[in-house]
Amino acid sequence: MSELRKDPVIGRWVIISTERAKRPSDLMVDPGEPRGGFCPLCPGNEDKTPPEVFSIPGEGSNSQDWAVRVVPNKFPALTLEGSLHKRSEGMYDIMNGVGAHEVIIETPDHTATFSSLPVAAFTNILLACKNRLNVLKQDNRLRYIAVFKNCGEAAGATLEHPHSQLIALPVIPRRVTEKLDGSQAYFNYKRQCVFCDIIQQELTDGRRLVAQNDDFIAFEPFAPRFPFETHILPRNHQSVFEDTADCMLPALAEIMSIVFRKINKVLGFPPFNFMLHTAPFNKDVSEFYHWHLEIIPRLTKIAGFEWGSGFYINPTPPEQAAQFLRDSAVE
Amino acid sequence: MSELRKDPVIGRWVIISTERAKRPSDLMVDPGEPRGGFCPLCPGNEDKTPPEVFSIPGEGSNSQDWAVRVVPNKFPALTLEGSLHKRSEGMYDIMNGVGAHEVIIETPDHTATFSSLPVAAFTNILLACKNRLNVLKQDNRLRYIAVFKNCGEAAGATLEHPHSQLIALPVIPRRVTEKLDGSQAYFNYKRQCVFCDIIQQELTDGRRLVAQNDDFIAFEPFAPRFPFETHILPRNHQSVFEDTADCMLPALAEIMSIVFRKINKVLGFPPFNFMLHTAPFNKDVSEFYHWHLEIIPRLTKIAGFEWGSGFYINPTPPEQAAQFLRDSAVE
Repeated sequence: MSELRKDPVIGRWVIISTERAKRPSDLMVDPGEPRGGFCPLCPGNEDKTPPEVFSIPGEGSNSQDWAVRVVPNKFPALTLEGSLHKRSEGMYDIMNGVGAHEVIIETPDHTATFSSLPVAAFTNILLACKNRLNVLKQDNRLRYIAVFKNCGEAAGATLEHPHSQLIALPVIPRRVTEKLDGSQAYFNYKRQCVFCDIIQQELTDGRRLVAQNDDFIAFEPFAPRFPFETHILPRNHQSVFEDTADCMLPALAEIMSIVFRKINKVLGFPPFNFMLHTAPFNKDVSEFYHWHLEIIPRLTKIAGFEWGSGFYINPTPPEQAAQFLRDSAVE
Repeated sequence: MSELRKDPVIGRWVIISTERAKRPSDLMVDPGEPRGGFCPLCPGNEDKTPPEVFSIPGEGSNSQDWAVRVVPNKFPALTLEGSLHKRSEGMYDIMNGVGAHEVIIETPDHTATFSSLPVAAFTNILLACKNRLNVLKQDNRLRYIAVFKNCGEAAGATLEHPHSQLIALPVIPRRVTEKLDGSQAYFNYKRQCVFCDIIQQELTDGRRLVAQNDDFIAFEPFAPRFPFETHILPRNHQSVFEDTADCMLPALAEIMSIVFRKINKVLGFPPFNFMLHTAPFNKDVSEFYHWHLEIIPRLTKIAGFEWGSGFYINPTPPEQAAQFLRDSAVE
């Protein structure tokens, strides 16, 4: 029989559908052929992107070498120009599209994957994210920054070269507000961080654990929307990602590297998204919020039921997904 | 410059991205070739589905003829067997998967589309939905029924034969709760139905109108998540779809038929989803809730930003989309 499971933070129910249970081989998606052609993110084409706002030098002797570059998106959803003018149109509210939209070019290597990147390269990507968050949050028009990655065409990527993106927003997005509200309500009731309690239960239970080191934990959430949805959290309570000490980033890079190598081994390099959930700016959520990373392999299609209801049908119990990932040995 | 627009019911912001503005020809999606092969929903294969729970006879002289059939889904996400047992696992909540999952076979004609179906056939589909909602809501374990359609592989359809589905649930889904909460808050403040106010503003403004008749209105919402997202509402306040008088259904069928013929003409038969938003059971929301139908052509990919934030980037202003749809003449 199927089960309905409730997300302990935001209260969203999902159906874990045992009638439709799917194994990794049923879920594999054709990653498609490389598209080739001109790549504006490759070394040598630096003049094809807007001027960089941050970079980490490469190991080479050439001063043009870089390991990571951050550039404004050439076709930005939002821009930093202009003032944050709000207005109404009858009963509707409108705001100017003030914000920022940047591209984090993760490596000079066009063909690299999250399985092939060394941990040091991963650490550089995290350093770049941390830097940009800390710079952009000085702009008091902004309220939140969403850092995310689209990898593969089915996950919404339009460029093949490894990159992630950030969008800085003048309002706190709905999904973030839901998580803040849910974790605050839990804190008000229990005087505990809900994420810390989840970590504790996952460590004790063990069935949904994927990987851990001294500082971070990776597991399949109890009520996942998607097969092989995986979350990574710092083991100690911390609400703001960009406050992570630089010396902690290699441990985060290591667990991300392990998780992606496992996912790619079990599922054959699926298209995926990841999203970093850090705290909003100018709002003290340090008692009850806990930053985290959500990884979603894009294996199933979102259909009318999910759009209409916000209810998800997941054909792979997280305990099974975690078992597959734990059992896949990566060096 | 891009605009941020706020949905007046649930408060969700979207980015209307003028930098990335897209016309219909930029958005068209290849509908793909017919897949062919055996179809369990075609006439003659009635024994390949579970026994029907409702049907409307066809016009033919054969007693086997049918115009619409409703059958339980052969691979149901939820089933009516068993009791609604709730339990906890540490901090997590679980419920048995009690509910129903049915398939509304909309026509015997495998190759029919929402453009080719006559209004009378559309009316039969609506009659079937109304009937099943009224029967299933007698089951006091159930709280809500989501009626939806997935058309085209990109919209999550696994069968080609024209069909929609319903899933009856023992809890009220999150997206429905959001709409109930939003419309109740608006009512508490204004003593008015937010949807009635939206209808009034859309009729006065006119820029987002797509079609109307005496009883129904179709328009592009002010803050749409997706290009060509279209909503249909009864002009007079009514919270429960299944309370619609039978004599009103032809007018709804007519406006749906017009809207889909316009969408198919402008966008070339895109994959799409629709979701019916009716009131939950056993809960009096009649003052402030107003049933409606959401139609979403699946033209753009949902990426990490949308998953992570619940914020949507829409490259087509609804005023432009409505203009294209209004300008496309259908007989």
